[in-house]
Amino acid sequence: MSFFDYFRANKKKSAVVAKERLQIIVAHERGLRHSNFDFLPKLQQELLAVVRKYVQIEDDQIKISVEKDGDCEVLELNIALPEVDDRP
Amino acid sequence: MSFFDYFRANKKKSAVVAKERLQIIVAHERGLRHSNFDFLPKLQQELLAVVRKYVQIEDDQIKISVEKDGDCEVLELNIALPEVDDRP
Repeated sequence: MSFFDYFRANKKKSAVVAKERLQIIVAHERGLRHSNFDFLPKLQQELLAVVRKYVQIEDDQIKISVEKDGDCEVLELNIALPEVDDRP
Repeated sequence: MSFFDYFRANKKKSAVVAKERLQIIVAHERGLRHSNFDFLPKLQQELLAVVRKYVQIEDDQIKISVEKDGDCEVLELNIALPEVDDRP
């Protein structure tokens, strides 16, 4: 299965069908060592800051979810990009 | 379909079965406006720099792929995290 299948399947659930959009997914699997290192909360704000260098994003255009399943943790950021092209 | 399915399916193809790993996926869909804004190459190096603030990663532990399909472009970073916990 390609990631495009996942990305496009996700689209149908959202209201941003014809809009430009950006999805960032960070998946962390701890493996056998089961480290206590808590990556995702730290990364979340920094990733948004990086994206905001390039594109103006309103807070209400960002959907954030964090899911855990066993030793996997997934942070998903779904960002609807602005209609007006005011990017540098 | 959950992202966990995609993440775990991907695991079988790699050699890092029992290791701690991090996967970052950035998917950009241009939508009807078809902007020429080229997000992913700019983001790639910055995302790695952010991750490296928290964990030491060797260059040979990073697999990067970029795929395009129509108006979608997907950047995928697969990172095998170090066995020894030398993180701050």
